[in-house]
Amino acid sequence: MTSPRIDGRRPDQLREVRITRNWLDHAEGSVLVEFGRTRVLVAASVTTGVPRWRTGSGLGWVTAEYSMLPRATHTRSDRESIKGRVGGRTHEISRLIGRSLRAVVDYRALGENTIVLDCDVLQADGGTRTAAITGAYVALADAVEYLRGLGALAGEPLKDCVAAVSVGFNAEGTALLDLQYEEDSAAETDMNVVMTGSGTFIEVQGTAEGTPFSRDELGQLLDLGSLGCAELTRIQREALA
Amino acid sequence: MTSPRIDGRRPDQLREVRITRNWLDHAEGSVLVEFGRTRVLVAASVTTGVPRWRTGSGLGWVTAEYSMLPRATHTRSDRESIKGRVGGRTHEISRLIGRSLRAVVDYRALGENTIVLDCDVLQADGGTRTAAITGAYVALADAVEYLRGLGALAGEPLKDCVAAVSVGFNAEGTALLDLQYEEDSAAETDMNVVMTGSGTFIEVQGTAEGTPFSRDELGQLLDLGSLGCAELTRIQREALA
Amino acid sequence: MTSPRIDGRRPDQLREVRITRNWLDHAEGSVLVEFGRTRVLVAASVTTGVPRWRTGSGLGWVTAEYSMLPRATHTRSDRESIKGRVGGRTHEISRLIGRSLRAVVDYRALGENTIVLDCDVLQADGGTRTAAITGAYVALADAVEYLRGLGALAGEPLKDCVAAVSVGFNAEGTALLDLQYEEDSAAETDMNVVMTGSGTFIEVQGTAEGTPFSRDELGQLLDLGSLGCAELTRIQREALA
Amino acid sequence: MTSPRIDGRRPDQLREVRITRNWLDHAEGSVLVEFGRTRVLVAASVTTGVPRWRTGSGLGWVTAEYSMLPRATHTRSDRESIKGRVGGRTHEISRLIGRSLRAVVDYRALGENTIVLDCDVLQADGGTRTAAITGAYVALADAVEYLRGLGALAGEPLKDCVAAVSVGFNAEGTALLDLQYEEDSAAETDMNVVMTGSGTFIEVQGTAEGTPFSRDELGQLLDLGSLGCAELTRIQREALA
Amino acid sequence: MTSPRIDGRRPDQLREVRITRNWLDHAEGSVLVEFGRTRVLVAASVTTGVPRWRTGSGLGWVTAEYSMLPRATHTRSDRESIKGRVGGRTHEISRLIGRSLRAVVDYRALGENTIVLDCDVLQADGGTRTAAITGAYVALADAVEYLRGLGALAGEPLKDCVAAVSVGFNAEGTALLDLQYEEDSAAETDMNVVMTGSGTFIEVQGTAEGTPFSRDELGQLLDLGSLGCAELTRIQREALA
Amino acid sequence: MTSPRIDGRRPDQLREVRITRNWLDHAEGSVLVEFGRTRVLVAASVTTGVPRWRTGSGLGWVTAEYSMLPRATHTRSDRESIKGRVGGRTHEISRLIGRSLRAVVDYRALGENTIVLDCDVLQADGGTRTAAITGAYVALADAVEYLRGLGALAGEPLKDCVAAVSVGFNAEGTALLDLQYEEDSAAETDMNVVMTGSGTFIEVQGTAEGTPFSRDELGQLLDLGSLGCAELTRIQREALA
Repeated sequence: MTSPRIDGRRPDQLREVRITRNWLDHAEGSVLVEFGRTRVLVAASVTTGVPRWRTGSGLGWVTAEYSMLPRATHTRSDRESIKGRVGGRTHEISRLIGRSLRAVVDYRALGENTIVLDCDVLQADGGTRTAAITGAYVALADAVEYLRGLGALAGEPLKDCVAAVSVGFNAEGTALLDLQYEEDSAAETDMNVVMTGSGTFIEVQGTAEGTPFSRDELGQLLDLGSLGCAELTRIQREALA
Repeated sequence: MTSPRIDGRRPDQLREVRITRNWLDHAEGSVLVEFGRTRVLVAASVTTGVPRWRTGSGLGWVTAEYSMLPRATHTRSDRESIKGRVGGRTHEISRLIGRSLRAVVDYRALGENTIVLDCDVLQADGGTRTAAITGAYVALADAVEYLRGLGALAGEPLKDCVAAVSVGFNAEGTALLDLQYEEDSAAETDMNVVMTGSGTFIEVQGTAEGTPFSRDELGQLLDLGSLGCAELTRIQREALA
Repeated sequence: MTSPRIDGRRPDQLREVRITRNWLDHAEGSVLVEFGRTRVLVAASVTTGVPRWRTGSGLGWVTAEYSMLPRATHTRSDRESIKGRVGGRTHEISRLIGRSLRAVVDYRALGENTIVLDCDVLQADGGTRTAAITGAYVALADAVEYLRGLGALAGEPLKDCVAAVSVGFNAEGTALLDLQYEEDSAAETDMNVVMTGSGTFIEVQGTAEGTPFSRDELGQLLDLGSLGCAELTRIQREALA
Repeated sequence: MTSPRIDGRRPDQLREVRITRNWLDHAEGSVLVEFGRTRVLVAASVTTGVPRWRTGSGLGWVTAEYSMLPRATHTRSDRESIKGRVGGRTHEISRLIGRSLRAVVDYRALGENTIVLDCDVLQADGGTRTAAITGAYVALADAVEYLRGLGALAGEPLKDCVAAVSVGFNAEGTALLDLQYEEDSAAETDMNVVMTGSGTFIEVQGTAEGTPFSRDELGQLLDLGSLGCAELTRIQREALA
Repeated sequence: MTSPRIDGRRPDQLREVRITRNWLDHAEGSVLVEFGRTRVLVAASVTTGVPRWRTGSGLGWVTAEYSMLPRATHTRSDRESIKGRVGGRTHEISRLIGRSLRAVVDYRALGENTIVLDCDVLQADGGTRTAAITGAYVALADAVEYLRGLGALAGEPLKDCVAAVSVGFNAEGTALLDLQYEEDSAAETDMNVVMTGSGTFIEVQGTAEGTPFSRDELGQLLDLGSLGCAELTRIQREALA
Repeated sequence: MTSPRIDGRRPDQLREVRITRNWLDHAEGSVLVEFGRTRVLVAASVTTGVPRWRTGSGLGWVTAEYSMLPRATHTRSDRESIKGRVGGRTHEISRLIGRSLRAVVDYRALGENTIVLDCDVLQADGGTRTAAITGAYVALADAVEYLRGLGALAGEPLKDCVAAVSVGFNAEGTALLDLQYEEDSAAETDMNVVMTGSGTFIEVQGTAEGTPFSRDELGQLLDLGSLGCAELTRIQREALA
């Protein structure tokens, strides 16, 4: 039987995932994460103190910013700095990444420290937001170790780990894991699943791009997403070992 | 047994929903939609022609913009026009509303006409995006009738209807339907469900605000959301009758 | 003799004016004011304290912001938040409303409190700025009562009341009171008159749209404007009774 | 009897007014206009053609932009280019200047040509907008002559001339003509009067800065403004002779 | 032998340079500087205190802003305030002027005072940045005298003087001093030289507009620039005498 | 004798320079260029056609954009997209890169094609603009080959090659080649030299950061810069071989 996928993968197979730690020299944590040809550089920056509205609370803060280089994509896009405004898609993904990581952070253990995760897409081939979340967890873990080395923590700030993957149905109704660009563009339904290492859900976002989907189809996608996140969790652990 | 809810509703009960059509004199479709104290004014504006990238395709276009008046909320917020930029949350919700409505539109039947749905929140008490989607469908239906009256359609552009509702777990683990502001702020998990009148899903967005949720809990929320959307579909049909 | 006006009014007759107080649940004062089909929602927001440049002076502050929903008008306009800049007309009217209300405020009696008046035009049919001023006075009075209830005042902050109306000449040279949209577009001369309840002038702005006007014509418009403001003052008093 | 004015003028006396034509080498019309220490550089730029919405109408267009150099004032202000937005006051005055000049222009005689009047305040000492209008008329007249020289006109585009002056009451209730900065800051009422050479009104804008004013006081200011505009008309004619 | 230059100058001859001090009444130092038809108004504004990042250091600060009026040039340009962003060329020249003046300032002697130099080009005919630097030094010297008069200095803040001039090769390979607009547009190589009164270099910026230049040609331009700066230094001294 | 440099290099020694071609899959030319720890990703994007003002001329166009990732530097900087404006330094460097490359391009041979060079600094350790120019030439050469492969060229568009390096004096008066961050921050004089492979100058920018420099010192820096550019030209040729 032949594969239903462009690159010959099984429907339930991830692309080759590579996580290179310490790709940068200055950042307190940094990762080049690759899901096939999708390549995201994540830098974790630690600063002492928290935003003004949180000062004196004893609690830390974690936030994220996502962006794409102009030629990450097949054709060049204009820079948001030149357009003078951040687009809706950029905003939406930055918020998703921040939310996903904050879900496993114990702010009290972090103390009044801030960690910013900059996720810059160097090359895009589908799944940039899920690669960013998966890589950002590793950079966050390194930044937390940096703070631990300084004796700046009040406990263990990471309650669990976080990974994310995209899933969707192709036009023939086959559920696919970790869609690359062409698959993503042609998908009937597209879902991003963000999960903890313990197998619980942090975020589920499913969208019908074509025909609306049934409860049963939703179930199939969640099964596949859970499988993918479990595998990504394993890869993260190896990278951090 | 007493209600677990501030306003005495049953866990699976919607707030009082009111849909007032033709609230404006100029717009081709307009609705004041109220989910309890949440009050959204939706105006559907019809223009002949489509954006440049779609011209000559024979296909129509539907888009949406969401915004909040500065004093819709408990304390006043600054206007985005004065800040000079549209915030991430505004962008995200505008995109969600547009996507949700487009899922039931047959662009070919619509012909090269554009319908813009302006959803302005006059008062916010939780669930503004779901109220906006629910009301916008009714305004869209009226705008489509307006085009039908002009003989400008090439078939029936509405393949189905659309309604949306929020669901979530409170701190005691009870699943609640249609969260008002205080419930929303305190929810452990928060989910927005957008469904067709036929009972299929257009969009599912679930977020763990506190503890991540299990597959079983996700199922409970989907059940409750389906129930709420079915009831909203009934109310929309009455309003359009 | 037939009326020279589209809607059958006498030249010196206002449109039907309705002032609905407490249209919003959160705002300290709020009014839906209608001059015929022109409909403006005014929210008065009270905050303790004043802008930095006024802190420690013992004086209060009152300011206003005017805006129009995109489909308030016959054809849809782009949002200023999306354009990223506030237009000249919006700025000009916001400044006029603020100035008009400040003219009757005793800042010392107000104490170091700020009242912001948000005037959002839900539907426009001419005279939106004069309707906004007339409604804003009522919302301001309610916000002042709210502060009085808190014991936060150092006297009576409202020295007088304020109302505003537009007047103009039509092409036949008849002076008209309270111009609706079509009359306004066709007027030779257009004047906005803002007056106190005592019959003195706060602001007079007259512009020749066609032929420049004579001193005598200016006099006729002032007569008509004074008459209209006196009637609006009466309606405001009834609403506040 | 001593003068009630800082600089010893009679209440009904203009400051020394100087109009220097052709202050710039490139512009089709240019004027350095001085009302005492207030100094405004006006450049009239002619371009063939009109904005897109007017193309093919056979009608011309005239518009104006007003701005202040950062150190025109007693203390330095930030540049609007650096703040990234044009302030409300700048917008308001630009619109007033444009409206005032357009009131005497016959667009058909102008043909499809555009004249932009840039009014840049080099030094401000009160009355910048009235000096700008008065000087802009002269620059406009020179730009019209330039077009006449090209044979590009279809008649006489200037139906009349335009001048403007400020008037106001000081704290002692004396009506003053052409207020300089300190007088303007201390005025109870402030009015700008824009008139044609024929003595009719183009624009009247009166504002109560302190106590609201009576109909009789309004009359006194109009008398004084008419007197000042007549004198400015005479000075403009001399400059153009 | 005839001159190779449009205006008949010798290759090594400056245009007529005029420096008019105290052109403004409010500014602590001000200069109208003219290099032929290039005309720049420089205002030096003194404020007590320094930017926050420098507070408490005992050191002063000097900065500059450059801008062009819309009709300084042969054809009108749009205002940067209206475009809502400052262009690259404006930024680049503002930074050059600030750097050039700071090179001769002793911050400790200046004390915690800030001097802002606003350089507004009223008319442009080539060499606006070098005229601005040359004039700004004189305005700076006057602002320093103003501070000396207040007893606010801790020594002599000006370690040297600064002048600047442009040089370049025309198409025939002749090196020219102080290029006017047409010469500048046609130059093969264009260089700006900023020098102290003592004959040392503060900034050298040479750009090949056509054919890249040799080390020997670079030497010729530096010779010519040194000559021009020495002459400008003499003119500055006369103006300040 | 010990080295005067932090990293033990000789004064006239470049850092280790690495040029990795085809680092990206989508771009028509791409290079990861490293000068020691300075790491710049350059993408060359080819589009058919030229900007509107050049259409129909038969000439091509080359332009560049420079930007830094937020954590390229020792401490994190805010994104320009979020600040909503591009800073002066960014503008200045983008313009320098574009100018430098255009100096060796034959527009007629390029035909009506546009090449945009995006230079994104992934890590900064001094000399980012010179690394960007040096790498951009290689990416440009690859993009030109891509066009040649399409048969889209009308000759050889590259008249020469381009390389750039920084030079400067340290506090002890030693001239250094290719300054890394700490050397750059401490330099008395800082110069960027952009040269062709033939040894002529495209751009020379020297700035006195401390004491102004003499003609003789300028000569020393030019000698060292010429040496460095020759070595970089050799490295570029190897990379392209």
